Amino acid sequence: MKRIGIADTTFARVDMGALAIDELKSREASIKIERLTVPGIKDLPCAARRLIDGGCHLVMALGMPGAADIDKQCAHQASQGLIMVQALTGIHVIEVFVHLDEARDDRELKWLAERRTREHAENAINLLFHPERLTRQAGTGQRQGFEDAGPVE
Amino acid sequence: MKRIGIADTTFARVDMGALAIDELKSREASIKIERLTVPGIKDLPCAARRLIDGGCHLVMALGMPGAADIDKQCAHQASQGLIMVQALTGIHVIEVFVHLDEARDDRELKWLAERRTREHAENAINLLFHPERLTRQAGTGQRQGFEDAGPVE
Amino acid sequence: MKRIGIADTTFARVDMGALAIDELKSREASIKIERLTVPGIKDLPCAARRLIDGGCHLVMALGMPGAADIDKQCAHQASQGLIMVQALTGIHVIEVFVHLDEARDDRELKWLAERRTREHAENAINLLFHPERLTRQAGTGQRQGFEDAGPVE
Amino acid sequence: MKRIGIADTTFARVDMGALAIDELKSREASIKIERLTVPGIKDLPCAARRLIDGGCHLVMALGMPGAADIDKQCAHQASQGLIMVQALTGIHVIEVFVHLDEARDDRELKWLAERRTREHAENAINLLFHPERLTRQAGTGQRQGFEDAGPVE
Amino acid sequence: MKRIGIADTTFARVDMGALAIDELKSREASIKIERLTVPGIKDLPCAARRLIDGGCHLVMALGMPGAADIDKQCAHQASQGLIMVQALTGIHVIEVFVHLDEARDDRELKWLAERRTREHAENAINLLFHPERLTRQAGTGQRQGFEDAGPVE
Repeated sequence: MKRIGIADTTFARVDMGALAIDELKSREASIKIERLTVPGIKDLPCAARRLIDGGCHLVMALGMPGAADIDKQCAHQASQGLIMVQALTGIHVIEVFVHLDEARDDRELKWLAERRTREHAENAINLLFHPERLTRQAGTGQRQGFEDAGPVE
Repeated sequence: MKRIGIADTTFARVDMGALAIDELKSREASIKIERLTVPGIKDLPCAARRLIDGGCHLVMALGMPGAADIDKQCAHQASQGLIMVQALTGIHVIEVFVHLDEARDDRELKWLAERRTREHAENAINLLFHPERLTRQAGTGQRQGFEDAGPVE
Repeated sequence: MKRIGIADTTFARVDMGALAIDELKSREASIKIERLTVPGIKDLPCAARRLIDGGCHLVMALGMPGAADIDKQCAHQASQGLIMVQALTGIHVIEVFVHLDEARDDRELKWLAERRTREHAENAINLLFHPERLTRQAGTGQRQGFEDAGPVE
Repeated sequence: MKRIGIADTTFARVDMGALAIDELKSREASIKIERLTVPGIKDLPCAARRLIDGGCHLVMALGMPGAADIDKQCAHQASQGLIMVQALTGIHVIEVFVHLDEARDDRELKWLAERRTREHAENAINLLFHPERLTRQAGTGQRQGFEDAGPVE
Repeated sequence: MKRIGIADTTFARVDMGALAIDELKSREASIKIERLTVPGIKDLPCAARRLIDGGCHLVMALGMPGAADIDKQCAHQASQGLIMVQALTGIHVIEVFVHLDEARDDRELKWLAERRTREHAENAINLLFHPERLTRQAGTGQRQGFEDAGPVE
């Protein structure tokens, strides 16, 4: 049975972890979920590593970086750490970050967080169970959250 | 018995290490504390690694970066190093940085350093002993130091 | 038999993976291709690591970073990750990135993506089968995509 | 017997390595010194790694970055490398960098290089032999080179 | 017998690899040279790792970064990768980069590339065969290419 790790934060203003689990379960009822909630995005690389060491076949790392310059730098460091964990282990860690300044208001923020989380959950399922679907979409300008860009005609 | 490592600096202008130990002990009298004080924040990744290699189950890394551009870069390098240690070991290193230019004066600096340190100490205890509490707070906009942002309604 | 890994993305707006495979096959019919398509460029370091762990002797990592500042930072993180994978494994990962703002319009974008991909595929073949050809070109100002700069006379 | 590694450069304009050795020896006559001089600061991470692999219990890495933008970037890369070596090995590498543009003239540069080197040498001795002294100084605003900031009252 | 690796690029506009080999051979006829030419500077960390894994005792990594912003970032990533390889292996990788915008014209570019390459080749020989010569030059303001800065009087 495939195990998917969910690493999320108490800093985020939307419960992205619960959304991810809901979407994953609705697509593949057989998977086992391991969830590890940490304070902020800088704790996500460690959470991902722990989930991988615990046997997860893929991890989703969900967070909501703030809008200040220092928050941007934290997000950069967190992303580098998530990539480092993947470079060391060869296990996919799907980063789902929604920046607080990407949305115009709370309503759009919630909408964006949900849509991006669900679309990345679909990617996670495809990576584990249906890699051929991703290859069929190769070079077609897919986006997670806002509209797809589409392929060059 | 759980062991928590405290890595702190002589550069900081508030004894954050002592505050962290006080808070940890008041919440979990049974834990064992290992403390390693280093000159500055760039020495914290090594201190964290040493504490982990010595058997700590979690480390708090406390520092007070300066306000100059070069200090900001040092803080960036220190953060990257702390994340690298976690990516390599899978042991949480809770970074507690209070930037000297975050506060308007010494009084606020002291207040902020204490509050952020104590709130992160609570996070450390939760990560080790009560992970379900963090999951209950997932996506609720928690902050350490200044006011919580709260969840999107 | 030599195995070449192809890591590409659904984010790209041109099917660079298919172009790479076509060029590689036309130059060395005997090679075996392993293809792994991921959502975006930040997933490429993990894909490269997986392809290497699966036995590939060289990997091409193809992607199309966006034009926004955040996209530039993602491309930077992805590049760092690809280099980290190489530093850890000693297996070449040829990065083929075409930035969406490098071309004036879709037509040029498609042309550039194809030309750069095919020229890097030639480099990949040379690295694996004809290293002496690259040494003959040492210091001659080769470019992939736009015109060669040529050697200093 | 404790061994301390000294990694220094031919690029620096003051013989910081000799100053460090003088200070270390005056404080702990029993230590053994291993010195490895490299061309520039970017060679220091490798020198530190070699000294550690050769059995040093602590390394001092001394350098004098230039004032140009490219020099700043080199210093950043060198610092990241020194931190990486520590993250990998758990051995302290005390970075002693004096930037050429920190001083108003050669006279101050020499004064600053000597003072900072000697104060960091004291830190090195304390880390190895008297860690309790550093803990007593925790949070007291120590600086190396210019005046101490002191603790918040 | 000592083996020195030469990693160079087809992107460079001067055959720096050949210059390095010429200088190394003229100084130490007994050394064995292993040369690996790659497309661009971002391929140098992997080349260095391969040369080290193949038994080289030291590597020279020679490249000529372009003048555009994206080229600067590539050079930064390449430098970080070269330092990472050294942090992991403890084998010196002497970086010899000549930026295309360091020289006023092709003539100066060629002069600078040759002089810097030859001076770094001398450093490489000293690191392997005469480390005491570098220590004698410690803190004397050596430069590779343009004029030495000299020691502070």
